[in-house]
Amino acid sequence: MPIPPRPDSTSNPPADTSVITVELGDRAYPIAIKSGETGLADPSGFASHFLDAVGDCTHAIVVQDVAIADSAGSMITQSLKSSPLRLSVIQIASGETSKSTDRIAQLWNEMLDTAADRRSVVIAVGGGVIGDLAGFAAATFTRGLRLVQVPTTLLAMVDSSVGGKTGINLPGGKNLVGSFWQPHMVWIDTDFLSTLPEREYISGLAEVIKYGVIEDADFFEYLEANIAAILQREPEPTRTAIAKSCESKARVVADDERETTGRRAILNYGHTFAHAVESTAGYGVMLHGEAVSIGMQMAAELSVSLGRCDRELLERQTALLAAAGLPLTWEDADVNDMIAVMARDKKVAHGKLRFVLPDRIGNVELVGDVPADEVAAAIRACR
Amino acid sequence: MPIPPRPDSTSNPPADTSVITVELGDRAYPIAIKSGETGLADPSGFASHFLDAVGDCTHAIVVQDVAIADSAGSMITQSLKSSPLRLSVIQIASGETSKSTDRIAQLWNEMLDTAADRRSVVIAVGGGVIGDLAGFAAATFTRGLRLVQVPTTLLAMVDSSVGGKTGINLPGGKNLVGSFWQPHMVWIDTDFLSTLPEREYISGLAEVIKYGVIEDADFFEYLEANIAAILQREPEPTRTAIAKSCESKARVVADDERETTGRRAILNYGHTFAHAVESTAGYGVMLHGEAVSIGMQMAAELSVSLGRCDRELLERQTALLAAAGLPLTWEDADVNDMIAVMARDKKVAHGKLRFVLPDRIGNVELVGDVPADEVAAAIRACR
Repeated sequence: MPIPPRPDSTSNPPADTSVITVELGDRAYPIAIKSGETGLADPSGFASHFLDAVGDCTHAIVVQDVAIADSAGSMITQSLKSSPLRLSVIQIASGETSKSTDRIAQLWNEMLDTAADRRSVVIAVGGGVIGDLAGFAAATFTRGLRLVQVPTTLLAMVDSSVGGKTGINLPGGKNLVGSFWQPHMVWIDTDFLSTLPEREYISGLAEVIKYGVIEDADFFEYLEANIAAILQREPEPTRTAIAKSCESKARVVADDERETTGRRAILNYGHTFAHAVESTAGYGVMLHGEAVSIGMQMAAELSVSLGRCDRELLERQTALLAAAGLPLTWEDADVNDMIAVMARDKKVAHGKLRFVLPDRIGNVELVGDVPADEVAAAIRACR
Repeated sequence: MPIPPRPDSTSNPPADTSVITVELGDRAYPIAIKSGETGLADPSGFASHFLDAVGDCTHAIVVQDVAIADSAGSMITQSLKSSPLRLSVIQIASGETSKSTDRIAQLWNEMLDTAADRRSVVIAVGGGVIGDLAGFAAATFTRGLRLVQVPTTLLAMVDSSVGGKTGINLPGGKNLVGSFWQPHMVWIDTDFLSTLPEREYISGLAEVIKYGVIEDADFFEYLEANIAAILQREPEPTRTAIAKSCESKARVVADDERETTGRRAILNYGHTFAHAVESTAGYGVMLHGEAVSIGMQMAAELSVSLGRCDRELLERQTALLAAAGLPLTWEDADVNDMIAVMARDKKVAHGKLRFVLPDRIGNVELVGDVPADEVAAAIRACR
């Protein structure tokens, strides 16, 4: 039985909201950014957008983080009950350990138990773990079901829910197994953020600030002027921060969907250092965005010392990350351990250290063959 | 690190062999059909074709059926040793049980143990089980490695190695998890067939004959004239039978890579019945091609009784399948059990029975809403 065709998401956008389109030809899809009466407070709002986005569908499988089952999960299922869809719900335990080979095998079997077929659509409700796991299940069950992402954390809203990366971990490393699988819609209701713990919210802001540095200088200036209001989660600036971040990611992904041209690598600004921070600290000690903040500082230090940018860039980035309440240094950083981790990173070509480095606010370049002693100095500068 | 780009496989085909191109735009790839001095008897032949087809590569992972480790597997690894590639070999136990969630998890970890990265290429050496399992591992490890298929059974040469379907089974059903993932090359050495057991060889002929019925009347006539020689595995007619089958499958796949237009469904001629035969008989009782032969007979009976074709088509198909030594009937067929299985089939739309039915040799159509009593009569006619 054929998978139903993808509706043309670029035409006829709903009039009541800001919709960003990820321009991927026949895989283009909308990111709907909602709140209040246009969000899940409208009982039938999600269901009608859902049906517009996915087209022919008789069965929805909500895969949700058990921690949000009574909040976001419940609002999604309530909205779908206003539709004629058959509805199944699968609960996933919170936390990175759910991104395992055992859990994906169980999830595939649970999907089969719901009598899923190629007309079924998977709806991932939760943070990055749920989006990655449920997205990989959607990519692979009967060789591909349609997917809708409903991110409930700031980090998932501005990063992991957009762009089509799905996957699970192996004992030997994170995200080593997965697929590129674009969703049919990303549904962001900023009201979900009202209950997000402060530390998680701030962690998400690291990725927001990252977009300003890598490809949108105007957005960086906007963040400098509005960071206090965003920290207070004031609706309009928070919404703008999310929308601009999604637009930025959508542009990069549209240029390089599957990491073949190298352009998508700019999204890894700060991340080579951050992965080494997370890995040597032990996963879970630091939140991902906290490690990214420190990693961006190390990358900017490296760029300054290589003469690729002036110190003012580093100073502006430092000030903005600090204003957001993000960490700038890690006093326990072990230089040798971190460099050893970076040399094993799957993004390293033949053992040479490569980094995404800024030359000005709003532009970064992929730089190869960086001397290890310069890398060590950048780590030490953030210790 | 980006995945290296796919070389342009349509230009500069090797001059020494028949190469069929699967026309899939930027995912086009060659099927090289070899034997004797142009096949694995030439120590460096495979390696040089491999490097032409995959492009930039430093590491090859041979995933092979343990049963052919000393024959085809050894010839592949010997050939690769003439190249500068780093080489890893992973053994898979023979049989359908290797297409499990446990085995794919183990395979992912074994690939990580070889220090595979995105420049690594997976080479699947074996029958359909190995191609499906290793293909799915390639599709998903670090979100996608390049894949080369080296089918060693007739069935894999003419069917599963071409077209990009990969996957594993769940306890609840076959091929329920997988990806569409096109190889960079299919390498067919017909010399491998010399040691294939007679029953397996004949089983593969069912799929060969299928291509004649579904979309190549000239090929059907060729088979009628040459079936005795093909049964004797005479080199030239055997090679022609394989090449024409691959050309036929390549045309269908090029029209409908991901089963979105419905065209690819014609490859399932006989298969809806065959799956019900296999499922009610118990998997492993009958070889796949044997069930397909019986299923094609049931489908042709159904087409005749629906008035969609004349009885001569059925008679010609019956004669050719019989001449190939394939079964035409199954005396243990349970009509109700088989119809129950067909109603659950993932290719069934909303419980309505749909079949690929011939109207003349060389053309089939997808027919929906077939009355259950007509289906029952077709099963009874082949009992």
